[in-house]
Amino acid sequence: MGIRACLAKNTPMIFDVAAEIDYAVNFRSAMILSVHAQESSSQQILKEQFELTPKVQSTMFRDEHGNRFIRLDTANHKTLSLRYSATVDCDYGIHHAEKIAATPVTALDQAAVPYLFPSRYCQSDRLSKMAWDLFGNCETPHDKVVKITEWIYNNVDYVRGSTNAATSAYDTVTQRAGVCRDFAHLGIALCRALNIPARYFTGYAYGLQPPDFHACFECQIGGSWMVFDATRLAHLNGLVRIATGRDAADTAVASVFGSVRCTQMKVSCEVGSNQTFVPIRSEQLGPRGVTIAAGGE
Amino acid sequence: MGIRACLAKNTPMIFDVAAEIDYAVNFRSAMILSVHAQESSSQQILKEQFELTPKVQSTMFRDEHGNRFIRLDTANHKTLSLRYSATVDCDYGIHHAEKIAATPVTALDQAAVPYLFPSRYCQSDRLSKMAWDLFGNCETPHDKVVKITEWIYNNVDYVRGSTNAATSAYDTVTQRAGVCRDFAHLGIALCRALNIPARYFTGYAYGLQPPDFHACFECQIGGSWMVFDATRLAHLNGLVRIATGRDAADTAVASVFGSVRCTQMKVSCEVGSNQTFVPIRSEQLGPRGVTIAAGGE
Amino acid sequence: MGIRACLAKNTPMIFDVAAEIDYAVNFRSAMILSVHAQESSSQQILKEQFELTPKVQSTMFRDEHGNRFIRLDTANHKTLSLRYSATVDCDYGIHHAEKIAATPVTALDQAAVPYLFPSRYCQSDRLSKMAWDLFGNCETPHDKVVKITEWIYNNVDYVRGSTNAATSAYDTVTQRAGVCRDFAHLGIALCRALNIPARYFTGYAYGLQPPDFHACFECQIGGSWMVFDATRLAHLNGLVRIATGRDAADTAVASVFGSVRCTQMKVSCEVGSNQTFVPIRSEQLGPRGVTIAAGGE
Amino acid sequence: MGIRACLAKNTPMIFDVAAEIDYAVNFRSAMILSVHAQESSSQQILKEQFELTPKVQSTMFRDEHGNRFIRLDTANHKTLSLRYSATVDCDYGIHHAEKIAATPVTALDQAAVPYLFPSRYCQSDRLSKMAWDLFGNCETPHDKVVKITEWIYNNVDYVRGSTNAATSAYDTVTQRAGVCRDFAHLGIALCRALNIPARYFTGYAYGLQPPDFHACFECQIGGSWMVFDATRLAHLNGLVRIATGRDAADTAVASVFGSVRCTQMKVSCEVGSNQTFVPIRSEQLGPRGVTIAAGGE
Repeated sequence: MGIRACLAKNTPMIFDVAAEIDYAVNFRSAMILSVHAQESSSQQILKEQFELTPKVQSTMFRDEHGNRFIRLDTANHKTLSLRYSATVDCDYGIHHAEKIAATPVTALDQAAVPYLFPSRYCQSDRLSKMAWDLFGNCETPHDKVVKITEWIYNNVDYVRGSTNAATSAYDTVTQRAGVCRDFAHLGIALCRALNIPARYFTGYAYGLQPPDFHACFECQIGGSWMVFDATRLAHLNGLVRIATGRDAADTAVASVFGSVRCTQMKVSCEVGSNQTFVPIRSEQLGPRGVTIAAGGE
Repeated sequence: MGIRACLAKNTPMIFDVAAEIDYAVNFRSAMILSVHAQESSSQQILKEQFELTPKVQSTMFRDEHGNRFIRLDTANHKTLSLRYSATVDCDYGIHHAEKIAATPVTALDQAAVPYLFPSRYCQSDRLSKMAWDLFGNCETPHDKVVKITEWIYNNVDYVRGSTNAATSAYDTVTQRAGVCRDFAHLGIALCRALNIPARYFTGYAYGLQPPDFHACFECQIGGSWMVFDATRLAHLNGLVRIATGRDAADTAVASVFGSVRCTQMKVSCEVGSNQTFVPIRSEQLGPRGVTIAAGGE
Repeated sequence: MGIRACLAKNTPMIFDVAAEIDYAVNFRSAMILSVHAQESSSQQILKEQFELTPKVQSTMFRDEHGNRFIRLDTANHKTLSLRYSATVDCDYGIHHAEKIAATPVTALDQAAVPYLFPSRYCQSDRLSKMAWDLFGNCETPHDKVVKITEWIYNNVDYVRGSTNAATSAYDTVTQRAGVCRDFAHLGIALCRALNIPARYFTGYAYGLQPPDFHACFECQIGGSWMVFDATRLAHLNGLVRIATGRDAADTAVASVFGSVRCTQMKVSCEVGSNQTFVPIRSEQLGPRGVTIAAGGE
Repeated sequence: MGIRACLAKNTPMIFDVAAEIDYAVNFRSAMILSVHAQESSSQQILKEQFELTPKVQSTMFRDEHGNRFIRLDTANHKTLSLRYSATVDCDYGIHHAEKIAATPVTALDQAAVPYLFPSRYCQSDRLSKMAWDLFGNCETPHDKVVKITEWIYNNVDYVRGSTNAATSAYDTVTQRAGVCRDFAHLGIALCRALNIPARYFTGYAYGLQPPDFHACFECQIGGSWMVFDATRLAHLNGLVRIATGRDAADTAVASVFGSVRCTQMKVSCEVGSNQTFVPIRSEQLGPRGVTIAAGGE
């Protein structure tokens, strides 16, 4: 089988997503918000609404990855509420990636190279020996990532409140408890340690209980970014991409420059009307040899 | 004074730079090398030679920041030698940056935004309170960075061999010993904690003793990237830029994917013939209110 | 002035202390409790009651430092309640320690030697350069410790919930927020880095708001253990000692071997009837040149 | 089988040990040296010589564990040489410990309790979940420790120079490379996480290649301290105990208070004349169900 992932099937699906977040502002601050669904050839925004109350000045910028961020100044308001809703047409590719050989570092897409390097929460440089010891013998990159995902699922407990904003993969690999963000960081760090480009993925997730923003990760295999979720909490074909980045530092729902506190948050992701959803979950990856390349750049 | 840095003077200068590095290859590996001087509107390559012995296959790629990297496969060779030399015309801008007001996060060049976030070696998120306590009262961003640079110079000792590849700003701020890389990481972390975009700078440095690659950092003030060197070992107008990135993870002289060891390294940077060099050193920044924006993108 | 601290005055004071703690027991666990006031020549227990509900089997042991611990087995009970109350006669020595010269390591009481070494939460080995840079020039050990205590008070914010059980002095020195435990650990680490024996002190504290167990630290100066409180929340002569140890690892209120969760805690410390309390606070140490050696071994 | 370890056999053995260490003294410093073989009922010193050149003033103290330390002041000498030699009669007990049930925390010897707590280099509190996941199901404490020792041996590489004085179990468990000190720290941390008292052991080791001081660890099982060596570099019955402590912080060969550098070190440990040595190695523990309780307190 060639080096490129073979596209088996395209599965379009329409989702209605929404986020309501209220903030208390301690003093005048700037914020960068990342709640807009990414817009790309495989993820189209059919309808979209975004509102800030009070109506502070804000601007959107789109980075080189296609992520859309809102920058705003809270001015002297004491509270700020965000309402976002969108109808998004997501086009998933189902790939048979299980036999794709590793892409040599020398042949990687140039844009994937930064995702080989360690980042704030993914210290792949310090996990190198462990990664090679545990997963070095897996034959293909897909097999490596599936085994990494299984290892994390089997060894790390999903425990709300067990970690904080400073927790990194270096902690999680030993402490073995965390939330979706920590599972993703550990997966990314282990993949990069094995020279597999890996990046952080944030999005809306259909069926996630309790409803929330979700984080998982993508690996580049055979030239395509494939999505993996070590928490097994999301349907791989039920994700609406918001942003990708090196890790949570790049893609926080809200990056605050000043002092702002989230007081309430409500997130939803529903299948559009007249749609039938056939879930594909992480644990099916191994046996079925199927990998999802979610919509987005 | 307006928000943009006022360009006081341009100082072109020609340098001859060279690097000779020998590697021992333990087993077949890929490498990404970063030794080429950056090519940009303010840094022109007049002459350049690059040679690998044995002649393994290699390709150059230029990333979105203008950095030029060589990717290569060592094949089954046991050793690899790199020879690089170039004559580079660098155009420095001397700015009066000391009175430029802070650019609000909402008004920053979009390309500067990623340099506000923490990275592998620059955990600005964990240095936040310290940064604001020590430097929050400085009036302008230039003043903040000058004070940061002085603080590092006064509190951190330059000690060869005191740190290793895992050392980060979070360590250096307490252990207070390191090399140029550690000084730069700490400077970057403190600047980002204060919402000043900061990035890692690697280059050739005229007059550096002993001769070596050098690392320092740049901050974006008034829309321009200004160079700072907390080690005070380099002339700010004696730098030939190789690369910029979030930190050393992005811009290592050699990123190795496999097992390769440096056995010998020789670096040089000389002023071109018929040139007169008038040095500007870091410690002059405060009193003279002068900042250098080095050549490069 | 000689090497021994000159005892200026003895101030006896009687306190009524009490602790009520309720635990939820997830599964059968062992616990080591440290709530009993220490019994020593300068701290006498006039009256004492200790009760566990349900009445699980428990034994007391007294370690070589005079600390009294309760060991118990929760058996299969789902909850456990502890009630402790005591009337304690504490005898404080007020020393003029400000001019006492440093005791050379070679002349220290042998029992003080372990308190020179780094421990779980007090990584004095990694704070060495910083400690010498900031406090190395202070003339006497008392002066060093006073300056350390002031530095911590001025640079670290007391923020409930800002730290957790894994937080150590190495974190607090940079993150600069914490609770009494963190203030004490940082004080200890800095003192040990300067070759001043320092140990962790837990106790009941008169006037502490809100009422709680308190932690501070002791340094051995001139052969006596002097108490210091970088939080300035307690009266130095209002402390009833429970235990001393290398750090919080040795002297936790409850060390749990299994899974037990505190559900409610109420602590009190009142001046005995017919007593007049004249407070001595930490911030008076400098100007008055007075140091307290609290009761206890 | 009862809770106490059954002593199967005593194996006396005489060793000749020696240490020659040279130091360069940067400025007047105090030192605490730990090179004397411990003296106890099961380890007798038949002959002993200790010499410092130049003859600086020194005193010996014996701590509550039976460790003997030398304290000295370098005065203004620029160098210091230490020569120690001893003939030591070591009495090893071979225990059948494999079926001994766990001693409940409530029934432990009081003196063993501190060895349940985390220490500077053995952060058992942070390794808890991992320890229980990997070894919680092993039936007896002996089985747990044997499996821990095997896990370390199989997963951590012995690599000279890969770690430094700041490296702790929390690092080694992930970075998976280190020297004897790191192997011991990790073993201790994992045992303590499982409520098995564990302490650091330093000594002379017969047959160690290259000759050096050695570090391993002891666990208290059935009321006796049993020695384990995750490096498998030493014969368990070829160890002459110098000291035990919570970790390397307590038992360094040389604790320096000032600035002193080791310039040369030579260590030896030979079997006394007319003795026949039948080695027992770590890897025999599992199959043979035999554990060594080395001489010493």
